[in-house]
Amino acid sequence: MNKIVSGLVQKNKTKIVLVVLDGLGGLPVNGKTELEAADTPYMDAVAKTAACGLHIPVALGITPGSGPGHLALFGYDPVECQIGRGVLEVLGLGLEVKKTDVAVRCNYATVKDGIVTDRRAGRIPTDQSGKLTEKLRAGIEKIDEAGITFAAGMEHRFAVLLRFPEPLEPDAAMISDTDPQKEGQRPLYPTPLSKNAERVSRIVEKLINAIHEILKDEKTANYALMRGFSKMPHIPTFQEAFGLNALAIATYPMYRGLARLVEMDTPVIEGTVQDEIDFLKGNYDDHDFFFLHVKKVDSYGEDGNFPEKCRRIEEFDALLPQILELDPDVLIITGDHSTPAVLKGHSWHPVPVLLKSPYVLGGLCTGFSERECTKGELGIFRTVHLMPLALANAGRLKKFGA
Amino acid sequence: MNKIVSGLVQKNKTKIVLVVLDGLGGLPVNGKTELEAADTPYMDAVAKTAACGLHIPVALGITPGSGPGHLALFGYDPVECQIGRGVLEVLGLGLEVKKTDVAVRCNYATVKDGIVTDRRAGRIPTDQSGKLTEKLRAGIEKIDEAGITFAAGMEHRFAVLLRFPEPLEPDAAMISDTDPQKEGQRPLYPTPLSKNAERVSRIVEKLINAIHEILKDEKTANYALMRGFSKMPHIPTFQEAFGLNALAIATYPMYRGLARLVEMDTPVIEGTVQDEIDFLKGNYDDHDFFFLHVKKVDSYGEDGNFPEKCRRIEEFDALLPQILELDPDVLIITGDHSTPAVLKGHSWHPVPVLLKSPYVLGGLCTGFSERECTKGELGIFRTVHLMPLALANAGRLKKFGA
Repeated sequence: MNKIVSGLVQKNKTKIVLVVLDGLGGLPVNGKTELEAADTPYMDAVAKTAACGLHIPVALGITPGSGPGHLALFGYDPVECQIGRGVLEVLGLGLEVKKTDVAVRCNYATVKDGIVTDRRAGRIPTDQSGKLTEKLRAGIEKIDEAGITFAAGMEHRFAVLLRFPEPLEPDAAMISDTDPQKEGQRPLYPTPLSKNAERVSRIVEKLINAIHEILKDEKTANYALMRGFSKMPHIPTFQEAFGLNALAIATYPMYRGLARLVEMDTPVIEGTVQDEIDFLKGNYDDHDFFFLHVKKVDSYGEDGNFPEKCRRIEEFDALLPQILELDPDVLIITGDHSTPAVLKGHSWHPVPVLLKSPYVLGGLCTGFSERECTKGELGIFRTVHLMPLALANAGRLKKFGA
Repeated sequence: MNKIVSGLVQKNKTKIVLVVLDGLGGLPVNGKTELEAADTPYMDAVAKTAACGLHIPVALGITPGSGPGHLALFGYDPVECQIGRGVLEVLGLGLEVKKTDVAVRCNYATVKDGIVTDRRAGRIPTDQSGKLTEKLRAGIEKIDEAGITFAAGMEHRFAVLLRFPEPLEPDAAMISDTDPQKEGQRPLYPTPLSKNAERVSRIVEKLINAIHEILKDEKTANYALMRGFSKMPHIPTFQEAFGLNALAIATYPMYRGLARLVEMDTPVIEGTVQDEIDFLKGNYDDHDFFFLHVKKVDSYGEDGNFPEKCRRIEEFDALLPQILELDPDVLIITGDHSTPAVLKGHSWHPVPVLLKSPYVLGGLCTGFSERECTKGELGIFRTVHLMPLALANAGRLKKFGA
């Protein structure tokens, strides 16, 4: 389908704004969802004349991670374009991942007499683990032809990026995990699962030994277990796929990383949602697609904090008039997945969406909420179709067939 | 999916009537769509007890041409069964296309000293171009083993059909366009893009030279540029796919051509919608599926003429009781795509549909319109699923699995 869409793309001067309130969808507490309980006069007003509906990031019943959720919003089928855990981890820690790189999630662990006695090295504190990672960085810069970069994570977690001089074969990172997943066993050997992975796996073996050599005198964190060896997926850029010059406005590294996967412009931005909107205004002329990411809605959902999730939705709503003033040709407000406070985590529930454009029916919803969106003209659809719909409403797609 | 449906088909004496109000779907002007603004008491009454919904010909956001729109209504996936531009052009000019044929869109052009100086030969008037086509017809009847048929079009346009003695390989018409798309360049060579296309391309080359030989003394239209070399798609006939003996009732050649693609009976019919309905009545006993096409709804949508599009919808509505009197087992009223007057062209918007049969829920919609159909029991679904639904309601599909 994506190939068909790409073949129909035509360019014009329109502007598309995609606002992602991370984890927007919710579930009722005392009869109302977060979005229903929140006081959102501006989104409600827009929803009345917009095209509304609910979208499903992966499939009914499937809870998406942030990666699949965003890739689907960006118009890529998240089942076809799977992002490795290593790549996601590294993106989340703020590193750039290139087509020449292999990314790996790592744990500091305790190994005694060749046996893993603690897979998490006693969950060492983040500052202590950070110092160890600094030590690794100082001691290991290159193994054979691969440049090595370490990124510190929370507690016992860190990540490694192996950068090769040239792009790798698609299956070059198919290497088995070294984490045995149980204490009392030996660390596993990094086995290449394809012919093309042999070169990388030989370097990984040397890397594991080099890390152990540096850490061997540590009391607990004397070893590194590795999981999720992965490369960047081979996907067309956003520009190639949709002919759009896109700007990502996100304050969290993970979401900038996801935008960078499809080669949106992704400047490092810090601050509040107001700062993000200021950045949108300041850069409105230079791009034709804007991905504006609001993180905190999800964070409070994950914490199970219903009232604070509502407050963060209200905070965005109060700022919405500033985006409406820009008068984009197409404005979409939605989430990348649901994060109901009652579930304290991502969920499988379809995500409410509104699409404002001159070319919609409208008039079917009295406000913006999960239940009102079930009445909308967009119905319940797979998230991957949202981008073609945005392009169509912006006059950016030619007719299919004669 | 189609194979599964075909495997479940069982025959009976039921009648299915599919009314296609071309380009039916619309968008609001002063708050009401064409279908909402039109006074349609009969369709509204049927919608109240019918199964209603909205269908998507290709995918969300994709605007279908007439070809994909109709193929989907006929139960064929328009993404899998793509029809070449040459075939569509020839069908539109009223010629029959067989499995032995290669169809080509042509322009009369001006070529001087081997350079295209006008791709459209000054947009010569239709009557003049018709005379030239007559000249070609008289001069060229056969090239090698291929019979040659010319069809005159509007202004500088015409079409050619090459008929071979036997059916051709699926890729036998994969030949590059000879139209350079820009003035000041040489006409391109008709290059075969597959091994099987070499034979056809050799004949095309001779044809281009033969045409130039006849036209060479013309002042402007002294050359033919060719595009969209194509064959009939390899698809099962309507009878093979659904076990239905179908009659197409359409006054425009293009739609008869589309019906002929799947081998419906397609007599040449002229006149008004009343004439079409008279034809339906007169031939009701001899067939079990009827495709009745009403063109003018789309035409006025394309013109951006909102009130006249409404009037054409009303015109059909007033005639609907005559169809209801026939009491078909299944009656479907819908469009092949939307053509909102505000957009002056086809659009991506889902198309309202009502399906009248004894085996529906009904009672969900107060009338027939885009917005009422969002409340219907059929939801929003891909058009290709409409035919199985029609067959099921006619008792023409067995159970799948035990």
